[in-house]
Amino acid sequence: MVFRTSETLSQEINRLIEWLGSIGYTENGGVTRLLYSSSWLEAQTAVKKKMEEMGLSSRFDDVGNVFGRLEGTEERERVILVGSHIDTVVDGGKYDGAFGVLAAMIAAEQLYLQYGAPKKTIETVSLCEEEGSRFHLAFWGSGSITGRYHLSDASQVTDAENVTLEDAMHEVGFGTGTYPSAKREDIACFLETHIEQGQILESEKISWAAVSHIVGMKRMTIHLTGTSNHAGTTPMDRRRDSLYAASQMIADVIGNAKKQKNGLVATVGQLSLLPNVGNVIPGTCVFSLDVRHHEYDVLNQFCRDEIETFKSIARQEGIDIEIKTWLDDSPVRMDPMMTQRHLELAQEAGISFKKMVSGAGHDSQIFGVYCPTAMMFVPSHNGVSHSPKEFTKTEDLETGVRMLMKILYQMAY
Amino acid sequence: MVFRTSETLSQEINRLIEWLGSIGYTENGGVTRLLYSSSWLEAQTAVKKKMEEMGLSSRFDDVGNVFGRLEGTEERERVILVGSHIDTVVDGGKYDGAFGVLAAMIAAEQLYLQYGAPKKTIETVSLCEEEGSRFHLAFWGSGSITGRYHLSDASQVTDAENVTLEDAMHEVGFGTGTYPSAKREDIACFLETHIEQGQILESEKISWAAVSHIVGMKRMTIHLTGTSNHAGTTPMDRRRDSLYAASQMIADVIGNAKKQKNGLVATVGQLSLLPNVGNVIPGTCVFSLDVRHHEYDVLNQFCRDEIETFKSIARQEGIDIEIKTWLDDSPVRMDPMMTQRHLELAQEAGISFKKMVSGAGHDSQIFGVYCPTAMMFVPSHNGVSHSPKEFTKTEDLETGVRMLMKILYQMAY
Repeated sequence: MVFRTSETLSQEINRLIEWLGSIGYTENGGVTRLLYSSSWLEAQTAVKKKMEEMGLSSRFDDVGNVFGRLEGTEERERVILVGSHIDTVVDGGKYDGAFGVLAAMIAAEQLYLQYGAPKKTIETVSLCEEEGSRFHLAFWGSGSITGRYHLSDASQVTDAENVTLEDAMHEVGFGTGTYPSAKREDIACFLETHIEQGQILESEKISWAAVSHIVGMKRMTIHLTGTSNHAGTTPMDRRRDSLYAASQMIADVIGNAKKQKNGLVATVGQLSLLPNVGNVIPGTCVFSLDVRHHEYDVLNQFCRDEIETFKSIARQEGIDIEIKTWLDDSPVRMDPMMTQRHLELAQEAGISFKKMVSGAGHDSQIFGVYCPTAMMFVPSHNGVSHSPKEFTKTEDLETGVRMLMKILYQMAY
Repeated sequence: MVFRTSETLSQEINRLIEWLGSIGYTENGGVTRLLYSSSWLEAQTAVKKKMEEMGLSSRFDDVGNVFGRLEGTEERERVILVGSHIDTVVDGGKYDGAFGVLAAMIAAEQLYLQYGAPKKTIETVSLCEEEGSRFHLAFWGSGSITGRYHLSDASQVTDAENVTLEDAMHEVGFGTGTYPSAKREDIACFLETHIEQGQILESEKISWAAVSHIVGMKRMTIHLTGTSNHAGTTPMDRRRDSLYAASQMIADVIGNAKKQKNGLVATVGQLSLLPNVGNVIPGTCVFSLDVRHHEYDVLNQFCRDEIETFKSIARQEGIDIEIKTWLDDSPVRMDPMMTQRHLELAQEAGISFKKMVSGAGHDSQIFGVYCPTAMMFVPSHNGVSHSPKEFTKTEDLETGVRMLMKILYQMAY
């Protein structure tokens, strides 16, 4: 392999991971780059410059996505788009999204250094937003490219301080027509490499995976209303205890999810009580429910059955119930032919690999309904993500980049 | 009846309720008088002055209790103490504690106007603190009189701003020996009239009750530790979901309490999760448990059985559990002879009445282990207390005062 310096591939990967991880670095040792914040702007500007340094011709679009183009000698109308997202959660890690952005840039740079220009145009991308960690909207980057979102959606969405997405966008110079609009019609396919954010690969001692599906996901808020009352003076048969009802519902849905044994997962991650005082019967309980499976029928049926059970428990306890399903994403199947070819390349490469479902949402699910899409995982140590403790071994990062190079070489050269 | 003005008893009661309720009045229409705050000082000072105007000879003690003495012609060594507490919760009502303070003052005043001096000395009391709403300590007033607490305890206890009880006390001129020390050896018995803070009297259309017991109470904090993890990528059989374990425990304890049908009450009023985010399995869950019953064996056995069940659920779910019992108050029986006499007086008076257990803690439980004590309830509209909506009908307030007059007449004249 020819290197621009005397650095190995591993060294280049780690250097760039550390470099990007220092932008938005927090006291807790994590990374915080929220959409349109100053650390976000610093990162995208730096990535754009780095793309140029690495031989890619870079540009912004009007929502702040950054592209790095490697012009093809034969196909220029449509591009092979490869990358991931630049934003993070609060106090996230250095790898989530960032590794995919850098892996694409390194792979394109290395292919060019080794083989010259590709036949088919490759564009790397640093997508502006995926996490939904600042505004109540996720996948603003991929959604804008594919037409799921329009600029006009930006005025409808606010952050915790009531700043609209639109104002935040304008404040850093986007959304005003300075750059080309985000929507593209010229994407032939999308490829994404990402950390697994789970423990399956590490615990099975496997170094790489091709993703078959991104799970469908339903997210609900269940709002229960009973009556707050004195814990001492209210007899048990005169109570409308919202937490007692909620406990029965939560025990039921989690217990049933455990029995499914078909990959379905269900989580109640958030719960709040009012007034939330030890000597007052809680009159109000609000909790979240997050259910995921890669087959929509399975997901849908499970949720319908649980909702019926919840309503039945509420009736029995004399509690008022309101269930809002605020997210209902169908599973997205990755392109089967691309996925199959990637598994064959992994076989040839002699690495340990598997095919698996992604339990987390990714930009690949947004692209996957728009163009042929393929996604690849590298292991996460202890499955930790969204944390300063997020980590992937260098050899696995290198495997990820090398596989991406093999795949792009097969597709574009 | 002879009145000092042309005011009826009802009018006097309501006038004084409104008068006292205006001290510490909040924007929400409630009352906030936290121990040693400026509204607290204003109230105790005003009550002391009012006692003098009403013919009682008043004084402070060194923790800020206020006494109004009606000297007896025969018995002066020991006193019949009657009253309640002046402090409130944040945004409380006008009746909780306040009615008991005023009922005692009005009863003493009216008895003197009608019958002159009693044979036995009567002292009304406005106890400085009962609620535990500012410092992590309740019954500072009654506890100091009976010797449960000593002045030296005050340096050990802080409020939410880390001010010690001692410093707060000194700041308003107490605890420095200016006034007689709180501990008393001359109390023959204690009587307290209070609002029920429950719905039993109102729903049964009963206007007055004699309290037989103040419940025993155990309060616990249950701390569960599992593992926080990604809601999408963590298979169901690899989870340590603290909320799933908690839900089973809560459903069990409340369900079992409902089955007891012996007056036992159990409440989980407070629950918090970490990280409390919809797409993260909650690794930590902390919840409160409050259990009450008027027989210690029943209370104790129930709690022991539930703790065993909680540990068993924790084991089954692979969750670490820590249970802290931070309050363990034995039930306190009111003096049976006094209680019986009061029921007979109610019978003679031709009012609707019953004997009942108090599910809430009161100063009477502190006095009850120190001297013969009796407590009386008047109804609470809708059982509401600790709220601006706290309310008792005038006719019930009047019944309360008249019954107290009858009782004091029988005991002291």
